[in-house]
Amino acid sequence: MTPERIRALLEAVAQGQTDVDEAFANLAHLPFEELGFARIDHHRTMRQGFPEVIFCEGKTVEQVVAIADRIVSSGAALLATRTNAEMRDALVAKYPEANVNALARTVVVAGEIPAAETIGKILVVSAGTSDLPVAEEAVETARVMGNEVETLYDVGVAGIHRLLACRERLSDASVIIVVAGMEGALPSVVGGLVNVPLIAVPTSVGYGASFKGLAALLGMLNSCASGVTVVNIDNGFGAGVAASKINRLRAG
Amino acid sequence: MTPERIRALLEAVAQGQTDVDEAFANLAHLPFEELGFARIDHHRTMRQGFPEVIFCEGKTVEQVVAIADRIVSSGAALLATRTNAEMRDALVAKYPEANVNALARTVVVAGEIPAAETIGKILVVSAGTSDLPVAEEAVETARVMGNEVETLYDVGVAGIHRLLACRERLSDASVIIVVAGMEGALPSVVGGLVNVPLIAVPTSVGYGASFKGLAALLGMLNSCASGVTVVNIDNGFGAGVAASKINRLRAG
Amino acid sequence: MTPERIRALLEAVAQGQTDVDEAFANLAHLPFEELGFARIDHHRTMRQGFPEVIFCEGKTVEQVVAIADRIVSSGAALLATRTNAEMRDALVAKYPEANVNALARTVVVAGEIPAAETIGKILVVSAGTSDLPVAEEAVETARVMGNEVETLYDVGVAGIHRLLACRERLSDASVIIVVAGMEGALPSVVGGLVNVPLIAVPTSVGYGASFKGLAALLGMLNSCASGVTVVNIDNGFGAGVAASKINRLRAG
Amino acid sequence: MTPERIRALLEAVAQGQTDVDEAFANLAHLPFEELGFARIDHHRTMRQGFPEVIFCEGKTVEQVVAIADRIVSSGAALLATRTNAEMRDALVAKYPEANVNALARTVVVAGEIPAAETIGKILVVSAGTSDLPVAEEAVETARVMGNEVETLYDVGVAGIHRLLACRERLSDASVIIVVAGMEGALPSVVGGLVNVPLIAVPTSVGYGASFKGLAALLGMLNSCASGVTVVNIDNGFGAGVAASKINRLRAG
Amino acid sequence: MTPERIRALLEAVAQGQTDVDEAFANLAHLPFEELGFARIDHHRTMRQGFPEVIFCEGKTVEQVVAIADRIVSSGAALLATRTNAEMRDALVAKYPEANVNALARTVVVAGEIPAAETIGKILVVSAGTSDLPVAEEAVETARVMGNEVETLYDVGVAGIHRLLACRERLSDASVIIVVAGMEGALPSVVGGLVNVPLIAVPTSVGYGASFKGLAALLGMLNSCASGVTVVNIDNGFGAGVAASKINRLRAG
Amino acid sequence: MTPERIRALLEAVAQGQTDVDEAFANLAHLPFEELGFARIDHHRTMRQGFPEVIFCEGKTVEQVVAIADRIVSSGAALLATRTNAEMRDALVAKYPEANVNALARTVVVAGEIPAAETIGKILVVSAGTSDLPVAEEAVETARVMGNEVETLYDVGVAGIHRLLACRERLSDASVIIVVAGMEGALPSVVGGLVNVPLIAVPTSVGYGASFKGLAALLGMLNSCASGVTVVNIDNGFGAGVAASKINRLRAG
Amino acid sequence: MTPERIRALLEAVAQGQTDVDEAFANLAHLPFEELGFARIDHHRTMRQGFPEVIFCEGKTVEQVVAIADRIVSSGAALLATRTNAEMRDALVAKYPEANVNALARTVVVAGEIPAAETIGKILVVSAGTSDLPVAEEAVETARVMGNEVETLYDVGVAGIHRLLACRERLSDASVIIVVAGMEGALPSVVGGLVNVPLIAVPTSVGYGASFKGLAALLGMLNSCASGVTVVNIDNGFGAGVAASKINRLRAG
Amino acid sequence: MTPERIRALLEAVAQGQTDVDEAFANLAHLPFEELGFARIDHHRTMRQGFPEVIFCEGKTVEQVVAIADRIVSSGAALLATRTNAEMRDALVAKYPEANVNALARTVVVAGEIPAAETIGKILVVSAGTSDLPVAEEAVETARVMGNEVETLYDVGVAGIHRLLACRERLSDASVIIVVAGMEGALPSVVGGLVNVPLIAVPTSVGYGASFKGLAALLGMLNSCASGVTVVNIDNGFGAGVAASKINRLRAG
Repeated sequence: MTPERIRALLEAVAQGQTDVDEAFANLAHLPFEELGFARIDHHRTMRQGFPEVIFCEGKTVEQVVAIADRIVSSGAALLATRTNAEMRDALVAKYPEANVNALARTVVVAGEIPAAETIGKILVVSAGTSDLPVAEEAVETARVMGNEVETLYDVGVAGIHRLLACRERLSDASVIIVVAGMEGALPSVVGGLVNVPLIAVPTSVGYGASFKGLAALLGMLNSCASGVTVVNIDNGFGAGVAASKINRLRAG
Repeated sequence: MTPERIRALLEAVAQGQTDVDEAFANLAHLPFEELGFARIDHHRTMRQGFPEVIFCEGKTVEQVVAIADRIVSSGAALLATRTNAEMRDALVAKYPEANVNALARTVVVAGEIPAAETIGKILVVSAGTSDLPVAEEAVETARVMGNEVETLYDVGVAGIHRLLACRERLSDASVIIVVAGMEGALPSVVGGLVNVPLIAVPTSVGYGASFKGLAALLGMLNSCASGVTVVNIDNGFGAGVAASKINRLRAG
Repeated sequence: MTPERIRALLEAVAQGQTDVDEAFANLAHLPFEELGFARIDHHRTMRQGFPEVIFCEGKTVEQVVAIADRIVSSGAALLATRTNAEMRDALVAKYPEANVNALARTVVVAGEIPAAETIGKILVVSAGTSDLPVAEEAVETARVMGNEVETLYDVGVAGIHRLLACRERLSDASVIIVVAGMEGALPSVVGGLVNVPLIAVPTSVGYGASFKGLAALLGMLNSCASGVTVVNIDNGFGAGVAASKINRLRAG
Repeated sequence: MTPERIRALLEAVAQGQTDVDEAFANLAHLPFEELGFARIDHHRTMRQGFPEVIFCEGKTVEQVVAIADRIVSSGAALLATRTNAEMRDALVAKYPEANVNALARTVVVAGEIPAAETIGKILVVSAGTSDLPVAEEAVETARVMGNEVETLYDVGVAGIHRLLACRERLSDASVIIVVAGMEGALPSVVGGLVNVPLIAVPTSVGYGASFKGLAALLGMLNSCASGVTVVNIDNGFGAGVAASKINRLRAG
Repeated sequence: MTPERIRALLEAVAQGQTDVDEAFANLAHLPFEELGFARIDHHRTMRQGFPEVIFCEGKTVEQVVAIADRIVSSGAALLATRTNAEMRDALVAKYPEANVNALARTVVVAGEIPAAETIGKILVVSAGTSDLPVAEEAVETARVMGNEVETLYDVGVAGIHRLLACRERLSDASVIIVVAGMEGALPSVVGGLVNVPLIAVPTSVGYGASFKGLAALLGMLNSCASGVTVVNIDNGFGAGVAASKINRLRAG
Repeated sequence: MTPERIRALLEAVAQGQTDVDEAFANLAHLPFEELGFARIDHHRTMRQGFPEVIFCEGKTVEQVVAIADRIVSSGAALLATRTNAEMRDALVAKYPEANVNALARTVVVAGEIPAAETIGKILVVSAGTSDLPVAEEAVETARVMGNEVETLYDVGVAGIHRLLACRERLSDASVIIVVAGMEGALPSVVGGLVNVPLIAVPTSVGYGASFKGLAALLGMLNSCASGVTVVNIDNGFGAGVAASKINRLRAG
Repeated sequence: MTPERIRALLEAVAQGQTDVDEAFANLAHLPFEELGFARIDHHRTMRQGFPEVIFCEGKTVEQVVAIADRIVSSGAALLATRTNAEMRDALVAKYPEANVNALARTVVVAGEIPAAETIGKILVVSAGTSDLPVAEEAVETARVMGNEVETLYDVGVAGIHRLLACRERLSDASVIIVVAGMEGALPSVVGGLVNVPLIAVPTSVGYGASFKGLAALLGMLNSCASGVTVVNIDNGFGAGVAASKINRLRAG
Repeated sequence: MTPERIRALLEAVAQGQTDVDEAFANLAHLPFEELGFARIDHHRTMRQGFPEVIFCEGKTVEQVVAIADRIVSSGAALLATRTNAEMRDALVAKYPEANVNALARTVVVAGEIPAAETIGKILVVSAGTSDLPVAEEAVETARVMGNEVETLYDVGVAGIHRLLACRERLSDASVIIVVAGMEGALPSVVGGLVNVPLIAVPTSVGYGASFKGLAALLGMLNSCASGVTVVNIDNGFGAGVAASKINRLRAG
């Protein structure tokens, strides 16, 4: 039921065309949620500058292209994550203007994203070179959502001097995403050096007793640096979204 | 080496009392980290409006009082978390002006916290009444750090209408903390209704296969709502700190 | 907004006391969920014959009595689960007509539960004597919801003849709840003998590698008998509710 | 020993052809279980309308076809689950009338299933599109057992309005199967909206810390909605069987 | 239905007092399992020399004494395991002839156990002094079942010479029970020295990452010595029963 | 150093060809363990009737053939387990007399195994058809060690009548191996029906929450039937060895 | 059999007093292991300067005093670990010269420990004040074994400047023990700053998802600093022993 | 800021070209860590004799060759671990002098490693032939770091005589690395025979309940031999580095 239909119903009651009991029965089954649905959708996609996202892992190339087609033709911006090479080729063939990041496994086809008012820069920090695909996924996600993003890679805690040498860059950021596998200690060290919001992303990088990222995940959840928050293993996309939400200016 | 000592050394060089080689040798062994330490400390406690925190679990009443004494007499604000009744009595006896929250198990003795410029309100949402101690710890933590905090309690997902009836209050917040035990589903539902940063806190509330909060923790990490971040089980303090960092205005 | 208020608003529109625009504005902010809440509540408590439930573990005696007071004075039926002896004494002191089951740790104070139309009998089967508290909690829960309940105890699979001797009683039931700890094998055997819905309840009874009910839980989830469903460890209440929902007659 | 043989033995005793001692010795070794076996079989396959099921995962195409052949030629209905494309081709080549559902990975060849008296409709609800293979397996299983089945897909909790918009369809069902991966929160929300039996199916859909469905499984076992029961990870077949048993009319 | 009743029924048929149809109906519902029950019971307690066992953990002193009374007055032998001091006092007060082993936490009141024909000696080996309660429980269990039992204690693998010095005693046994906590390595070493059946019992002795016996359990299950079998953590009773069954002479 | 060399050395001393100091020096470095090694080897391979075993998983075809060659040419019996088809072809090409069991993945080339005096029959029981490879590995292992072995397959607990119909065969065995996946309940039921030693083998057969055999393993360790012992997941070989050791006659 | 007895036997053979067969029989049963036993014991306690150790957890005060008595009267040095206050009082009452460390829960009664030649200093580093009991246990263990030990406490990674300020002290050590709970990140940072052997000790300090030290244990095992080795959770004693063995000079 | 820049700044102050305030401001932001970085690097690669290491798993052949090129051309020694055959071929094609160990999956191209002063020999012990790749990785790592390394393979605890026969070789070593899978018991036995530092390496060798090395890992962490330290599962490289650090002579 749309606002128009509610208004029409009320007018009919006012004009005596519909009696009170009938109108009440109609309103009692008011499908308000559809109303809510539309509002949320509008809010999210139009005003907030969020793209539509396709998580491509486990989908076929045909499915990915079909979904992309529907999104792009609707004028929305598109972010495809966890693509494989074949998917990337297919998307680029169709949308030559697409922005491809093979390391991040992302494809972006930009549509209408109104500019959001952001607070500052997002900095993505990673521990080792094997963490880069996850870090880059966070970078691409945050960028397509209108953020200025910088990166600081390969500053794992076993060579703490590398991180300390970049302390100034840490201080410049408004939000920091820290990506690390193995023991996942980097967020604790970074979190002790800065006071801005810090999102930790454990990666499945590691051997034996890392148990596919469990060691890094537990390490980050138990960080001795106050206020570190954590997302799922390898979830660069989720970290990028969380950082974007923080980086938007919002006076409640 | 203090700033005073560095300055003195430089003056001695300028006045010819110390030659360049000797000054260089002194600076080569510069205990810079002490400098850094002082700077970070100043930064954190003085300019950023963070209190000193005592995690009281596992400490004796005497230890808690002694540490509190040192902090309060230094002029800093004090936040004591996970206190027991005896600790609270001892702290109130000493600091009659202290702000006690027995449910949250916190005691606050306010000292010098310069006002921080915040963006908006922090909203703390909880699923059930058993989650209140953790939720209240988050509230007290965020308040002592200078934030305006509101609460929305007992809106678990099994009675979704309770949450939907308060949708407007959700929309008013700048940051939302969602506290839930058992299956930990509340952050997913809230995260689908709003677009502001959302921090999820799993609690150890639950029976049998909740495995002391593991079920809620895994549920929150796997939330289908994009951008949810998670802190450790029962870590209301950590969530309060994270929300505070987000709610401060910071143009990078 | 209650149904009464909606009807009043519509009558005011029909009588020209309120114009369409004003009525629309009112309805646009319709707190529909409160409506939904009331409806669900009514549905649940009044028409469906479900009591109000207090899970007493972790509450104080005072809290339990206070909540019970509010429920009983509203005319609803009350089921208190996981009570301790002190709670039971306090409730009986206040409600001498209360039905106490110390083994099940339940107290029932019956109020207005309209009779539900049930299909048949619920049979609660348990493997060992240590499983009885959980089994009895299921029994009490199902009984207060208006079901006829029978029990068949101490028929663990290591003495299969005990179970087989009672095959006729198994065949008489409309729904069967099977409670077992240790290896949790009983639901598989019972599930192979009957064709009615079967709900398995793992208990935390066991030693060493039972890991507080994990062995029984996994065993039941992997049952080779088709169609066995499982609830949380020691959750006799949940099994009683599930069985009640099944045993009600409902032509969709 | 068949009923016929028992009767023959008794007749021989009555006619004095067999003396009491000999008859006793025969009966003492009575292979009663074979009797029971036959009875149960008859009960299950003939009167209850259950098909014979082949779980095809881990079998060769030849094995699947051979078993199918034996079942179909016996006149029973056949349900093959977890088939691969090659198995489906082989079965269709042999039984052109077979009903194939590639998404569900099922093949049905209907034989003699006497109509069962059912209570109402089974509704299968799923959270995301990746959960569809499991949801469809539940659908096919319930249909071949004689149930009317409806579906409600892609109503995950992060967009709660989608689910609320369909509240009426939820209310129409007699039994609801809810299929969800990731955090497995959907059964809690649905369970709060309806009062009919609800069977939750966790799926292995998810990344990182979902640990192949463990997160969803634990979430569902800890559901705050009373009376939710759970089956094994990805076990759409088991949920379909459980729902069928509930949906049959049975006055105990 | 007892054998006597079957015979009586057959005699009535032979004498024409009962017709074939009536007799058939009676036999069709033959409660054969009761028959089986009695036979198994007889078999187990009378002919096989197994005592009745009370697992006392989680029971009250009154319950233990009441059950003991029923068993002893029936003439059966009694083995009470996991007793506490109060239970032992109560049992000794009632049965002054009882055999008490405080370390093993067992009480034995011997009744009618017919002598079993055993093959040889059972040897119980333990790694450390903390493993003794479990080892002694195995000893008492095996002794009351009529076995000759010897012990070899404190021969942990970190001092392998202690074990090697006793190689001859290992060679003398017919069955060996090896009890060990921590890393649970002793069964592997003993299993490499002898060729008789070896039952490994993990104990919950250990600190930190022993996870209450999990480390020892996994170690024993993965033993590189062929043919080692394992029982539950701390289950000395189970090992004693298993060894007794092996040590009985049985020409199949 | 072989017994022959020791004897030769002693003879040389007796004949004055070697003096005491020189002999002492030789014996002081006596590689007694090699002696021990040889003795054990002799003991194991010659007198006890154990074959040499090659665990083929993770080895190349060439390695398997090379090791087999060394064993067979030494006159010992050979048991190759976990072979693949290529290995089996290669072994048969070389040893046409080899006994191949493709289901069990074993190859046996019999050499000198002195007859052992056994007590009775070993019975291998399995729950489902998917458990057969593990069950057959146990059968082959026990047979090559000189035991009479019988099998009883597809008697899972969900159709308990199938097992009960074979109670007599269970009673005939001296040792029983029970192989089961999924919930692993079969050993509990069988263990309640017989009094002979019972070895339980969990298999990795199962889906979702079986966690590759963990559910069955925990189920068997927690069996409510006294005296059940357990081997590693899928370890049919280990069960066969354990049963063989039990079935040998040994007066200690 | 001692070397003397071997020599005597050989002489008897040389002199014809013992014939070859008899000598051979004697040597075949050579109790070499007892020989080994004595040598190892001597080696360990006398020459290597290791004390005898009593692990007191789970023992009674009487047991601890009795064992201490036997050790001290033998002239050996005694180290009692995991003592409680009552045990410490009892030991001091008996041995007034005892060295008590209540924080470490250790008591040392020094006896004959020959001085070992050590390489340098052992440094014990800890992350937080809650880790001190474990750190001090390591200190006491290493000291009683003759090492020079220094400590560096409260240098957790969230305040990295505290650690960096002490870099020189890290460089001075020959072996470093790093004790940390929560996320266990400290060994990675320290390991990146120094090149000496580093032993990491996870502690059970932490909340919620630390799972009693599991998070720290996994973190340390996955350390990105090469060459970090790890001991059991809370095992300060083990770390002290390991460091002592490293710090002894040993030219192989 | 380099030392040169610090010196230049001081000279400018001495010459009056820069005033004290300006110099102070410059030094306050002193990027000291870059200084530290250079020092550590120099320390590690040049003076300590450590090679540069490439962990090749998860890298492409091209990446491995490119990184190797940069290292070798800088004059440093190179150790490539976890190479596959293709990588080894590519590296040998480029560096014909390379030292390849296919079993260890390592390639060494030796550059400038200054000789380190070592204490003695490192002995690498392994339990089974399947553990050899991990053992050999430890051997190669220790050798390239300038250590004398010996090996003792296939001495698993189920044939303890094999290990005892080599007791002398154990006594000769300065550091021992023990590599074992399955139950991981070997370090406990070796640790009881020697008093030198012992590093245990669990391997993922094992079946079923070894859970990819977890059983061996837990076994080693719980070793009853004092002072055993442990590295990650299959981490032969880490053990080699740890042993090298121990084997270097270092008077603190």
